Amino acid sequence: MKTIGHLINGAMRTDAERTQDVFNPSTGAAEKQVALASVATVEEAIAAAQAAFPAWRDTPPAKRAQVMYRFKQLLHDNADRICELIGEEHGKIHHDALGELTRGIENVEYACGAPELLKGEHSRNVGPGIDSWSEFQPLGVVAGITPFNFPAMVPLWMYPMAIACGNTFVLKPSERDPTSAMFIAELLHEAGLPAGVLNVVNGDKQAVDTLLTDDRIKAVSFVGSTPIAEYIYGVANANGKRCQALGGAKNHAIVMPDADMDNAVNQLLGAAFGSSGERCMALSVAVAVGDEAAEALVGKLTEAMAPLKVGAFSNSENDFGPVITRAHQDKVNGYISSAEADGATVVVDGRNPQVSGFEDGFYVGATLIDNVKPEMQSYQEEIFGPVLQVMRVNSMEEAMQLINDHEYGNGTCIFTRDGEAARYFSDHIQVGMVGINVPLPVPVSYHSFGGWKRSLFGDLHAYGPDAVRFYTKRKTITQRWPSSGVREGVSFSFPS
Amino acid sequence: MKTIGHLINGAMRTDAERTQDVFNPSTGAAEKQVALASVATVEEAIAAAQAAFPAWRDTPPAKRAQVMYRFKQLLHDNADRICELIGEEHGKIHHDALGELTRGIENVEYACGAPELLKGEHSRNVGPGIDSWSEFQPLGVVAGITPFNFPAMVPLWMYPMAIACGNTFVLKPSERDPTSAMFIAELLHEAGLPAGVLNVVNGDKQAVDTLLTDDRIKAVSFVGSTPIAEYIYGVANANGKRCQALGGAKNHAIVMPDADMDNAVNQLLGAAFGSSGERCMALSVAVAVGDEAAEALVGKLTEAMAPLKVGAFSNSENDFGPVITRAHQDKVNGYISSAEADGATVVVDGRNPQVSGFEDGFYVGATLIDNVKPEMQSYQEEIFGPVLQVMRVNSMEEAMQLINDHEYGNGTCIFTRDGEAARYFSDHIQVGMVGINVPLPVPVSYHSFGGWKRSLFGDLHAYGPDAVRFYTKRKTITQRWPSSGVREGVSFSFPS
Amino acid sequence: MKTIGHLINGAMRTDAERTQDVFNPSTGAAEKQVALASVATVEEAIAAAQAAFPAWRDTPPAKRAQVMYRFKQLLHDNADRICELIGEEHGKIHHDALGELTRGIENVEYACGAPELLKGEHSRNVGPGIDSWSEFQPLGVVAGITPFNFPAMVPLWMYPMAIACGNTFVLKPSERDPTSAMFIAELLHEAGLPAGVLNVVNGDKQAVDTLLTDDRIKAVSFVGSTPIAEYIYGVANANGKRCQALGGAKNHAIVMPDADMDNAVNQLLGAAFGSSGERCMALSVAVAVGDEAAEALVGKLTEAMAPLKVGAFSNSENDFGPVITRAHQDKVNGYISSAEADGATVVVDGRNPQVSGFEDGFYVGATLIDNVKPEMQSYQEEIFGPVLQVMRVNSMEEAMQLINDHEYGNGTCIFTRDGEAARYFSDHIQVGMVGINVPLPVPVSYHSFGGWKRSLFGDLHAYGPDAVRFYTKRKTITQRWPSSGVREGVSFSFPS
Amino acid sequence: MKTIGHLINGAMRTDAERTQDVFNPSTGAAEKQVALASVATVEEAIAAAQAAFPAWRDTPPAKRAQVMYRFKQLLHDNADRICELIGEEHGKIHHDALGELTRGIENVEYACGAPELLKGEHSRNVGPGIDSWSEFQPLGVVAGITPFNFPAMVPLWMYPMAIACGNTFVLKPSERDPTSAMFIAELLHEAGLPAGVLNVVNGDKQAVDTLLTDDRIKAVSFVGSTPIAEYIYGVANANGKRCQALGGAKNHAIVMPDADMDNAVNQLLGAAFGSSGERCMALSVAVAVGDEAAEALVGKLTEAMAPLKVGAFSNSENDFGPVITRAHQDKVNGYISSAEADGATVVVDGRNPQVSGFEDGFYVGATLIDNVKPEMQSYQEEIFGPVLQVMRVNSMEEAMQLINDHEYGNGTCIFTRDGEAARYFSDHIQVGMVGINVPLPVPVSYHSFGGWKRSLFGDLHAYGPDAVRFYTKRKTITQRWPSSGVREGVSFSFPS
Repeated sequence: MKTIGHLINGAMRTDAERTQDVFNPSTGAAEKQVALASVATVEEAIAAAQAAFPAWRDTPPAKRAQVMYRFKQLLHDNADRICELIGEEHGKIHHDALGELTRGIENVEYACGAPELLKGEHSRNVGPGIDSWSEFQPLGVVAGITPFNFPAMVPLWMYPMAIACGNTFVLKPSERDPTSAMFIAELLHEAGLPAGVLNVVNGDKQAVDTLLTDDRIKAVSFVGSTPIAEYIYGVANANGKRCQALGGAKNHAIVMPDADMDNAVNQLLGAAFGSSGERCMALSVAVAVGDEAAEALVGKLTEAMAPLKVGAFSNSENDFGPVITRAHQDKVNGYISSAEADGATVVVDGRNPQVSGFEDGFYVGATLIDNVKPEMQSYQEEIFGPVLQVMRVNSMEEAMQLINDHEYGNGTCIFTRDGEAARYFSDHIQVGMVGINVPLPVPVSYHSFGGWKRSLFGDLHAYGPDAVRFYTKRKTITQRWPSSGVREGVSFSFPS
Repeated sequence: MKTIGHLINGAMRTDAERTQDVFNPSTGAAEKQVALASVATVEEAIAAAQAAFPAWRDTPPAKRAQVMYRFKQLLHDNADRICELIGEEHGKIHHDALGELTRGIENVEYACGAPELLKGEHSRNVGPGIDSWSEFQPLGVVAGITPFNFPAMVPLWMYPMAIACGNTFVLKPSERDPTSAMFIAELLHEAGLPAGVLNVVNGDKQAVDTLLTDDRIKAVSFVGSTPIAEYIYGVANANGKRCQALGGAKNHAIVMPDADMDNAVNQLLGAAFGSSGERCMALSVAVAVGDEAAEALVGKLTEAMAPLKVGAFSNSENDFGPVITRAHQDKVNGYISSAEADGATVVVDGRNPQVSGFEDGFYVGATLIDNVKPEMQSYQEEIFGPVLQVMRVNSMEEAMQLINDHEYGNGTCIFTRDGEAARYFSDHIQVGMVGINVPLPVPVSYHSFGGWKRSLFGDLHAYGPDAVRFYTKRKTITQRWPSSGVREGVSFSFPS
Repeated sequence: MKTIGHLINGAMRTDAERTQDVFNPSTGAAEKQVALASVATVEEAIAAAQAAFPAWRDTPPAKRAQVMYRFKQLLHDNADRICELIGEEHGKIHHDALGELTRGIENVEYACGAPELLKGEHSRNVGPGIDSWSEFQPLGVVAGITPFNFPAMVPLWMYPMAIACGNTFVLKPSERDPTSAMFIAELLHEAGLPAGVLNVVNGDKQAVDTLLTDDRIKAVSFVGSTPIAEYIYGVANANGKRCQALGGAKNHAIVMPDADMDNAVNQLLGAAFGSSGERCMALSVAVAVGDEAAEALVGKLTEAMAPLKVGAFSNSENDFGPVITRAHQDKVNGYISSAEADGATVVVDGRNPQVSGFEDGFYVGATLIDNVKPEMQSYQEEIFGPVLQVMRVNSMEEAMQLINDHEYGNGTCIFTRDGEAARYFSDHIQVGMVGINVPLPVPVSYHSFGGWKRSLFGDLHAYGPDAVRFYTKRKTITQRWPSSGVREGVSFSFPS
Repeated sequence: MKTIGHLINGAMRTDAERTQDVFNPSTGAAEKQVALASVATVEEAIAAAQAAFPAWRDTPPAKRAQVMYRFKQLLHDNADRICELIGEEHGKIHHDALGELTRGIENVEYACGAPELLKGEHSRNVGPGIDSWSEFQPLGVVAGITPFNFPAMVPLWMYPMAIACGNTFVLKPSERDPTSAMFIAELLHEAGLPAGVLNVVNGDKQAVDTLLTDDRIKAVSFVGSTPIAEYIYGVANANGKRCQALGGAKNHAIVMPDADMDNAVNQLLGAAFGSSGERCMALSVAVAVGDEAAEALVGKLTEAMAPLKVGAFSNSENDFGPVITRAHQDKVNGYISSAEADGATVVVDGRNPQVSGFEDGFYVGATLIDNVKPEMQSYQEEIFGPVLQVMRVNSMEEAMQLINDHEYGNGTCIFTRDGEAARYFSDHIQVGMVGINVPLPVPVSYHSFGGWKRSLFGDLHAYGPDAVRFYTKRKTITQRWPSSGVREGVSFSFPS
């Protein structure tokens, strides 16, 4: 059985003290093992990054960017292989994995712009003969801790920009599906990255805690669930690091009576069930305003969900694949059951779908639940499965209140044709990423990604312009030159 | 005896449960009392700010800025009165208080630019027919906790921009010299600020902790000593708030052999002894490169220090005034004695200066100590008094190593005529604010203020562009309009 | 009879060789005279500006901004007097003059932000050890030539930012109503502007041509009619100056069938008839989509226009005042008659209104013309009077085609509730300033003003961010320091 | 003999009415012919660009950028072939051609950043419920007219950004060396550019004039000599186009007495003689401050020039190649002779060098002339050959006066170690691109390129940030939504 190891100082390594199984969720079988880094291994990775920092920091940004241009090309060239690796360990169908990868590549593209993005602000004459300017200098060694659900993309949210800004990096990908991240890191080396600038360690809490407490780590980026995000943020801060920690979500769509209903339903399908709902931007709650809209919505959704196919990652005709583990499958099923028990209506029931030939895979079918109420557990918590819940309210204000009262504030959306409704919604909703007729309002790579409330801990959002600020520290220089003999005072005898 | 109270929801109040003496450090006498807010009083202030938020947030930025324009004018009109209030409680001479106030006003000016500074980023066609933009929306109620050493300026670093961004504010000024901050807050109301948008509470740790733990407070800005900054940052973060906490400093000047020595000495005087050295940007260590430079530096400094006058704030001919308390006077004297005991040379001794007519004031005279070594306590800690220490090194690299090894990284400076030395220094020194022949490299209001290492906790610096980002949260909207009957499909019958 | 002279090098002057009458259009009487500058007088103004340039350019931007802050205050303090001066010579009612002035003051506010706006771009390490940055340096002496219709505001579009950027200025206001501009210029001197930085010359084509051909003038900003704008732009360019020349307009509103009709009518009234339609942003054509919308629009407009009052500037209850001259009154009346002759329907006829007590004033009443066609002269040319023409089309595409085919492209607007229609319109319409349910989409001072097609000659728009770029030239510095004995090579003997 | 034709609407064409010889300047032989486009051919190219515009403009910027990423890769892959084509027709040695190409590729990289660079400014609440934003929309069809001296690079300054901004393009490269530009344009099509977006026509004044006068061309970028630049600018403007026209130069280096002389000499060699001095940024005048500096400079230069080799492009060991034509060779020689006749000292004489095996090539050897005076023709005009002239002055002020008095203001440089001298120089010199110890201060691609005075006609510089502004027009949208039945007024019956 293959063991996935670490990439430290440009070399692949296997740290064999402890390992953990890596499953193929489509089959339910453990097909690989991942090495779990010891404290010493993580410290070695940090040391490699630390050693690589001075030279990399002094490499001109335009030269650092050249590595990113080549990296982008290699990612395109190896897209199929990467998607296969994602599929094997995460269960994503090829089209979905390719979507993930494409989004990741867009972050590499943004990092190519580092020379422009790192420009500081220059002021001539802040006082007579005094100039002042700000530079954005790299932090040093920074770390990224990433989740299973976007094994290729989320690391690419982090280290391309961190590295393009002149930092060196230690990545700890999810131990559930680490291979694609490892493979991609090798491509970056193939693109010309010097050894030590990017290091990848696999591991569990021990590795995480080492990263969080080692003085040489200057910043930590994290994406995962809210309780872990909160832990990471607290420990990192207590250890003098800057930190941005992205957590969970409960993303609502408001469906207004004037919405183009066919369009809305069509959009909701992908947003709710794509990637089995294992996305922090998954649209998991549809709030219909007015009973008429609700009836139409539930009717059309039920119809549209009928042909959806859940199945193994290897069949591109499937709409979505399994969830990540047996335990998670049970948890998602449990939420459906609890909603049912709490009085909601399970309109389409995805529990225990039959996936012929893959009976041991971790599948949950597309599920639609109507008449969900705010006090239900299935509403209050993040399900992270292919479950769309419908709520019915009397007014847009009521719908907005629901959203604003929820502890999460990651993404949200409104379906309407009305300019005023859209503007009022986007202005007043307490959510970081807002869609207007766009159910998955993930910002493009040149904007930044971030939720509000307990969906993100930290001041600065992920990727895009905020990432440049997060991965650099501001230095402000004020300069005055005293009067100069060279220019003024000296006379230079000239032959008469 | 006058009691300084609180300003809550536009009204002056006195919370009389507990009070504390406010001293005039020039005379050593307790002349006023300050009310110490109870938890209930602080919560009332927070509630007032919370209530004022929705309307203020929806007030157009250009209209919010109008209040700042009028505020600026009122600050100019009342400058003498403010300087007097600062002098009475802090001890600053008028010229120094005016300098402080002017710097504060510059931050009000920057806040006048809110309409420009709040511009978001707009992208047409992030996809076909899809637009995306980012808005920077206010946080809600934010708090500021400010130190005694700049009682007027540091609050003005914070709330003008916070308020111009649409937040409402609770300020807790230093209980040692609260009157100028209170007076200035009243001027802002005179300028037209609606009640509740800015509230001022006086208090001690109880008030601080209430601010740090109340859920309605969304962000905290702090300036003070490093241990408190670290505490504030930790508690605020643990309570889900964003926080920037500025702490202590040990600012070094490197004096290169080619420096214009007269200019350097002249600059060092003000930077080391101005405001009795009670500035986080005070220049407290001069590192001479080469013995020749050291000899010249110490010789010229000794000579230049002779005419310096320490004395009461009320005499404008004094160069600087007392330190803030009797306890602090003892502490500063203690550092001088410890340096002496550790083997350093006290060249000019400011312990126990005679200030005729003000024998009970908290005075320390200008002090010069030579041959200071890295292991001495007087070097490792922040003295916050009129004490300049000289160190001697053999090379610029050695000087830079000293600075980079110190736990603080607030400000630093190099004196040289050489372009290469200056550039190398500013590029590689691990300090947030760098001067080239500028000993107090405090960034102007349109740049941002912030140290590195243990001088600042948080990602974003104070005032200037970073303040705009700190006091707002990014919201990214992605918008697509489905095809429209209004534009396309419908035919409008026209008389034939 | 009072003669309005020139303001040169800080002093008021009268150049008496030639003068011209200044009328009060409300009464029709010539009440003042304006001096027409000779070539020599203009050259004196240029020389004064040239002499003032070096010191002003080296004055720190933050200090230059202080003058603008005081100027803003003085403009508020003198608002009534300024409005009266505008009224006397232009005929605007007080509320309209105050609106103009307020917009002008907003440009002064923007100029207060010069320290922020002048920031250049700084890049560390464009190559190893090489830095590069751009500065935006002032041009030198620049000129402004401004129209009668906003005698206070348009000059304030220009010189506050030009001056805040470090240039010196020669203004030639309209000779029809020069007094308010002159009075305002005096206020700027009262605010502390050094003599020579702003100079005002009155005059006619001779003065204009002197400004356009003198080598010392580096840039010209112009606002007026298109033929003159084209002339100015050509001559200025041929004489090596940068130039922005804003010309005429024909601003259309599309009224969609789903528009909130009452709101649209209400908005159109002010946009069409305010300031007698003598605005380059006046809304002069309403294009109704579908006959139903057309009928409703014309019906409601007719009703709403009934109470409109035209009359003397001195009565604040009037809605709008006279046009600027007898000749212009005749011209506007002529356009109405030509439309009638061409087959359009004059629904409300404003020709020859009775204004009791002011029978010799230059009045035209609010006029509504229906069934206007593209080939009519009244459609093809700018009327610049209180005349609203209605066109009827079958589709939004047809309406947009009309607008895109017109030679002018200054402003336009759509009335709709539909998000998609609004977005399509704003994306594809060939006009520089677009309103969505906003009939006078004049950008606020922190955006820039400019039309497309033959409404503006030049690359950069007026005021706002573009003005900063227009009034400065980019200088890019690339810097490398060769290795330095001071830092590296020399050893400094240290006592052993 | 091969004929180089046109690339119109994605297809290669030869327009055979008129042709012109293309020489290999290394051998002096005419080896190819270039087709000279007729008016009809140019109009066809414009029509193709016009037809391609609507779809290209609506292609999302991020998608347009993908073409640029691929283009960059193809340019790297084909670098040797491109350098050979440059060498054959221009005469550049391979290392020099590669330098040119690399600079060109950097502009393609900058164009990859279009999604970031095209961001507009968005303001929420410019008034209550009113938003405003600016978009930067493409102009339509734009043209580029480029010179012989950088046949690959200068076109790449223009069309990558123009196209990335959404414009379509017609390029007219120099008819002396058109092949590399044509080959590169084909690569861009290989990279996926749709037909018609970039068109290349070869031609002479007839083609140029067609571009300058055709109404469909919205903007023209030009690089060439000053008289032609002035003509282009005038005609383009008179025809309603925006235009930036870059002209000639006379770039001075000041050599200060404290300069690192070996470094200065080393830098000057490449800057003066590289590419035979046929660069608008060539350093053609060295101004020595003080006789001592002058003696050292001339002595060291003479010595350093001895080993320089002029010769055919095909030998990579040559330092530089021939000039472009026989006529230009005569002209350069004539300038040397005129300087001699005017009393200057020809220290190293490059007239009539012997290049064995290439006796008919257009060679001029590296030439050093001392004691040049301002009134000499060789000083007043641009030589554009491998000729370095030395002037001797007494002070830095005198040196700066020389530079500021010259009609050109493209580039300049100072050699010094002194921070104050460098800052004074960069602040006050009337030149657009300034080097501090950098003799060829060509801005990197993410800054902009442009001279002052008669070196550039237009407001905006070439490439970099200014190019984004030049190739787009600002549209400002102001939006308010009237109150909405959808959101507020309607009640939706809900089953009780």
